[in-house]
Amino acid sequence: MNIKPLFDRVVVESVQSEEKTKSGFILPSSAQEKPQTARVVAVGPGGVVDGKDVTMEVKIGDVVLYAKYSGSEFKVDGKEFTILRQSDILAIVE
Amino acid sequence: MNIKPLFDRVVVESVQSEEKTKSGFILPSSAQEKPQTARVVAVGPGGVVDGKDVTMEVKIGDVVLYAKYSGSEFKVDGKEFTILRQSDILAIVE
Amino acid sequence: MNIKPLFDRVVVESVQSEEKTKSGFILPSSAQEKPQTARVVAVGPGGVVDGKDVTMEVKIGDVVLYAKYSGSEFKVDGKEFTILRQSDILAIVE
Amino acid sequence: MNIKPLFDRVVVESVQSEEKTKSGFILPSSAQEKPQTARVVAVGPGGVVDGKDVTMEVKIGDVVLYAKYSGSEFKVDGKEFTILRQSDILAIVE
Amino acid sequence: MNIKPLFDRVVVESVQSEEKTKSGFILPSSAQEKPQTARVVAVGPGGVVDGKDVTMEVKIGDVVLYAKYSGSEFKVDGKEFTILRQSDILAIVE
Amino acid sequence: MNIKPLFDRVVVESVQSEEKTKSGFILPSSAQEKPQTARVVAVGPGGVVDGKDVTMEVKIGDVVLYAKYSGSEFKVDGKEFTILRQSDILAIVE
Amino acid sequence: MNIKPLFDRVVVESVQSEEKTKSGFILPSSAQEKPQTARVVAVGPGGVVDGKDVTMEVKIGDVVLYAKYSGSEFKVDGKEFTILRQSDILAIVE
Repeated sequence: MNIKPLFDRVVVESVQSEEKTKSGFILPSSAQEKPQTARVVAVGPGGVVDGKDVTMEVKIGDVVLYAKYSGSEFKVDGKEFTILRQSDILAIVE
Repeated sequence: MNIKPLFDRVVVESVQSEEKTKSGFILPSSAQEKPQTARVVAVGPGGVVDGKDVTMEVKIGDVVLYAKYSGSEFKVDGKEFTILRQSDILAIVE
Repeated sequence: MNIKPLFDRVVVESVQSEEKTKSGFILPSSAQEKPQTARVVAVGPGGVVDGKDVTMEVKIGDVVLYAKYSGSEFKVDGKEFTILRQSDILAIVE
Repeated sequence: MNIKPLFDRVVVESVQSEEKTKSGFILPSSAQEKPQTARVVAVGPGGVVDGKDVTMEVKIGDVVLYAKYSGSEFKVDGKEFTILRQSDILAIVE
Repeated sequence: MNIKPLFDRVVVESVQSEEKTKSGFILPSSAQEKPQTARVVAVGPGGVVDGKDVTMEVKIGDVVLYAKYSGSEFKVDGKEFTILRQSDILAIVE
Repeated sequence: MNIKPLFDRVVVESVQSEEKTKSGFILPSSAQEKPQTARVVAVGPGGVVDGKDVTMEVKIGDVVLYAKYSGSEFKVDGKEFTILRQSDILAIVE
Repeated sequence: MNIKPLFDRVVVESVQSEEKTKSGFILPSSAQEKPQTARVVAVGPGGVVDGKDVTMEVKIGDVVLYAKYSGSEFKVDGKEFTILRQSDILAIVE
């Protein structure tokens, strides 16, 4: 996918709930208000956001935890993606 | 169209959902809460917005992804346009 | 009309929807949520607004696009005027 | 009346809707959501308001336009007054 | 009363609506949304409030006008008091 | 109790409404919207809170007045405590 | 668990309400609006959050009190965790 997020935005790709991370982390896909795990597929350049300097801490390939309902979802070639602000990402799961 | 957006505003022209971008990006036109793709047709000069310096990162011709319902829509000669703040633009699609 | 807007305020005069701008820009008068076109008739001096320095970018005679429902309407000698903050103005139409 | 507004506050006295300003400005008294005209009768000293330096631009005797429902009304000896922040004043009418 | 308001807070004591100030200022006690007059009985030291330096402009004995419903009311020995931020005080009545 | 409030937080212990302060201050326990009196039992270190430097002005043993419904209540060994931000404290009662 | 909170975020593990802290602190698990106790299991690096420098004051192993309903809950291998901002933590219990 050739998408360049602006500023502090990050594109993530849904991680199947069957898929375990190295730490054995599983989130039931039916958990409505629970944070979501996803794999980072594109990262904005950071820079000045709302007059404040933002450094990007996540990188492509990171599996991250983010609050469900943050960001906007879209589809490319049948795959579901979400575009988030980095500040919506809670943690990196290793 | 001869419209000069002020400050950090950007005018975009709706991209038909039948139209594929280079990356094969398609958004079903019926997807109500999904981000929209559009082509930039006019870009404001940037400058000080709410006391913060804004540099314009998008340029005329860019295909961008923006959150539906941001901005204001208007029509010129039957074509639909939307005027957005640059910060409402999520990503550039290539 | 002898009205001096304070700070970053601008007085605009409703442009009839029958009236075309140079760019052929027309807004149906019934379009409720659409931006409005209007002609600038008075411009405040700018200066410090909410602790931030504001420079006025519009001038008397400009035809501008602004989000409907921003500003306050009033009447003088039967003509309808609207008083806006400059930041409510989306673009200059030429 | 011996009332000293604090900071950026201004006391205005209702202008009768029958009374014309020099510019022929009339506001029907029944216009509920329209801006109000009033004569300034007391002006605060300005100074630091919410951490920002405010200079007073209106003076006693000015006829001003302000958004209805801003400020607080009170009565002295049967006359109605309103106390506003200067930022609620839209324009000076001459 | 031995009460020391913190920061920019001020304790005021209800002025009987029968009581006239020097300027003949009267507020009917039934006026629900009108500003209230009250006598200042304790004044905080000012200082840094929300990161901004606040200087106290009112002093004990001042009769002040404040917007009803601002502040918190309490009783000591049957008398009613209100504790306000100085910024809730509209004017000093003399 | 061995509880260390973080930043600008303060732990207070409910003062029985039967208990008089030195100034004869009494608050009927049924007064729902009235400020509450309480004795300070733990004080945070202050420091940078929301990017602003906060100095603690209250100390253990102070009887304070705070707006009801601010803070969070908890129980230890049957006693009721409330944890507040210092900015929720209106005054020190002596 | 191998989870790295970003910025000022902290992962905490629910403390059983049967479990007493050293200070004898107990929170009935049915108390809906009461603060929660939990043990810190991961701490973000702090740094610039919303343009303000944040220093982490809690460390792994601390038992903390936080306002219920702050943060996001998730499960790993059947254990329940919550991810919070440090500013949602009210106090350290010892």
